[in-house]
Amino acid sequence: MERKPVSRTEIIIVGREILTGRTLDTNSNWLAKRITALGGDIKRVTVVDDEIDSICGELRTALGNNSHVIVTTGGLGPTFDDKTLEAVAMATGLQMELNAEALDFVKGRYTFFKEQGFVDSDEVTPSREKMAIFPKGAKMLPNPVGAAPGVKLRAGETLIVSLPGIPKEMRAIFEEALLKDLRDLFGKRFFLERTMSTSLGDESKLGEILDKVMKEVPRVYLKSRPTHFGRDVRLEVTLTATGDDADEVEARIQGAISEIERRLPR
Amino acid sequence: MERKPVSRTEIIIVGREILTGRTLDTNSNWLAKRITALGGDIKRVTVVDDEIDSICGELRTALGNNSHVIVTTGGLGPTFDDKTLEAVAMATGLQMELNAEALDFVKGRYTFFKEQGFVDSDEVTPSREKMAIFPKGAKMLPNPVGAAPGVKLRAGETLIVSLPGIPKEMRAIFEEALLKDLRDLFGKRFFLERTMSTSLGDESKLGEILDKVMKEVPRVYLKSRPTHFGRDVRLEVTLTATGDDADEVEARIQGAISEIERRLPR
Repeated sequence: MERKPVSRTEIIIVGREILTGRTLDTNSNWLAKRITALGGDIKRVTVVDDEIDSICGELRTALGNNSHVIVTTGGLGPTFDDKTLEAVAMATGLQMELNAEALDFVKGRYTFFKEQGFVDSDEVTPSREKMAIFPKGAKMLPNPVGAAPGVKLRAGETLIVSLPGIPKEMRAIFEEALLKDLRDLFGKRFFLERTMSTSLGDESKLGEILDKVMKEVPRVYLKSRPTHFGRDVRLEVTLTATGDDADEVEARIQGAISEIERRLPR
Repeated sequence: MERKPVSRTEIIIVGREILTGRTLDTNSNWLAKRITALGGDIKRVTVVDDEIDSICGELRTALGNNSHVIVTTGGLGPTFDDKTLEAVAMATGLQMELNAEALDFVKGRYTFFKEQGFVDSDEVTPSREKMAIFPKGAKMLPNPVGAAPGVKLRAGETLIVSLPGIPKEMRAIFEEALLKDLRDLFGKRFFLERTMSTSLGDESKLGEILDKVMKEVPRVYLKSRPTHFGRDVRLEVTLTATGDDADEVEARIQGAISEIERRLPR
């Protein structure tokens, strides 16, 4: 019996500054690399405005797609436009409530920041407390860099993870607080990517070759791309495959490389 | 009577290489800057796999959101995984047919590429011809760099534009073949963004100030962000506003800056 892979992942990036072009989103690329390498399969990335309805709509779509993992970034801070957790609560039908562990964490961070001279007061004002108000039942993911903790929540078969938008904080929480969960979830799935260069400069000719190889060597994904354009153009082919066994995945990729080489003009 | 702004825009980025993290998508950021400056309002960016159903699903969502403009990038080339135009046809209920103008364009490009020594043959093979098969009624946008033309199509109240994924080609078609359409569509709407630095290092305190100013100066969007984190942290505020009159937009932004300054501690 084939094991049903637990891998379908969607990423939701929250932030108006990305939609206006002010900020180049690099979080989704970093998460895509990291999650793909862990065996996750990213099917969709969405960027939305800092509005509860927009965020909630994307969460509902991702839940409706039976995603195993949904990762959001952005909208966890203390300001009025940080609305991601409210949207998570709305999409999952949960109440918002103060999370005691998260409140302790936020308090501890501001005590530390005051000691370091980063802030004047360590008082837990309403906007600081806001960062500890979670959908009921959610768990806190400590933030080793900033004040806003990450959040994880099981909603049926889906793990919803909310991380801050600041790349340094997002990455630190992912590596230090989330890795074990994702490894357990995605299991031992193995992802491999190889790139080969070709002597061809004509994408339409290479396309016909790749089309045949895709049919002959199933479960290897092929994609051609020019290294640059001009007189000396060379096309390269990226081969990707996923599976439960590293040797088998490697053999599949090598099989496809041989089939492509056999068909390339000398 | 207030003119209803024609501006709601969605961007759909097609490409598995972005979902695996191999390629950092910069097209959506470039388009976001360009379209925002022209008065468009990007509400949503989606990245999807090179699959007809995925692309078609996002197109249907964007059409259902009553978008005025939908821009897709990627999936216009000659290879088996270039399926964007089929998805556009499926989402709009149109047949695919050979576009005579586009076929002439593709022929002309390969004649030129052969003369330049980029390709061995200028024969219009089936995979080259594929780049000229459009949804019925679509118009061609010449590609000054590569072989695959861009495509524009009116679907009810929505303009659907499909551009190649290679950034140089995408940008060239946008600037040379699309700008006039978008200027006409978005009209004279004016977008302004200003950034001010503050003496504050505490985002939760600044958040309370911005919250009040947002209520007092409507139609200015405020967002705070740390310039960096540490002992010498400073928060900056980005103010954005859109309107039909440049002076009025400028005055609104300046009003908000004054209100923020008045509330900042000395």
